[in-house]
Amino acid sequence: MSERSVIHSTIVLERSYDASPARVFAAWSDPAALQRWGSPGEGWESSIDRFEFQVGGIALSRFGPKGGESYVNETRYLDIVRDQRIVSAGGMTSGGKRLFVGLLTVEFSPEGTGCRLVMTEQGAFLDGHDQPENHQAGWSQMLDNLRVECA
Amino acid sequence: MSERSVIHSTIVLERSYDASPARVFAAWSDPAALQRWGSPGEGWESSIDRFEFQVGGIALSRFGPKGGESYVNETRYLDIVRDQRIVSAGGMTSGGKRLFVGLLTVEFSPEGTGCRLVMTEQGAFLDGHDQPENHQAGWSQMLDNLRVECA
Repeated sequence: MSERSVIHSTIVLERSYDASPARVFAAWSDPAALQRWGSPGEGWESSIDRFEFQVGGIALSRFGPKGGESYVNETRYLDIVRDQRIVSAGGMTSGGKRLFVGLLTVEFSPEGTGCRLVMTEQGAFLDGHDQPENHQAGWSQMLDNLRVECA
Repeated sequence: MSERSVIHSTIVLERSYDASPARVFAAWSDPAALQRWGSPGEGWESSIDRFEFQVGGIALSRFGPKGGESYVNETRYLDIVRDQRIVSAGGMTSGGKRLFVGLLTVEFSPEGTGCRLVMTEQGAFLDGHDQPENHQAGWSQMLDNLRVECA
């Protein structure tokens, strides 16, 4: 048997945006918007190959540093409440190896004229291929990108 | 907007079984076995309507107390390592309401001539319809049933 391990981790990130919950929600439900802000690294390339924004629908994307290792993310929407909540679950592979599986909850609520966003990623990092610190940094970068997208 | 809430919770349960990891794993991958032990309440009824034990495959089951409220559980397998690990994600509904979504990791490892099982449920409990205590109690009951199944 090969060496197997799982590290479970919960990452919570919060942001306040100067845009309505509907506007911020739209940045997650529109694939063109998502592709603009949803890249975790400066200069990374990404493509969205499938995008079915409905409960039970699949979103499939590829991303990675230019000329470097490429990651495939496949996620399935489990719960959608318009302008309020998106929950999805899926996994990330690279070169056929499964690195990560996780459940992602994004909550949107009004805050003055803006939006409070709370993102919770409950992850299982598989066989030492990936670390929670990478996700913490990647999501932090993306939620900052999202501020520009919603400006 | 209706009142929405999410409670995130991680439940970890561990058991030692006097059966090989292959035997305990089989009790999760064989639908007939799963139906024998996988009911959370004494006298509850359950049925497995779909069971595709492969990565990307769906398992769909219904269960509930006889004559009482019925629950539908739909889960999708995200990672399977034979005799070692099963990870799945999905959700539970009742009467069309979504109560819960979660990621479930089950790890099997040799312990002497037996099996050590570690189960981790990373859950999101939606809109106050369900509570982590219910899952803790339900899984605890099922993992005890599993001891009988593997005897």
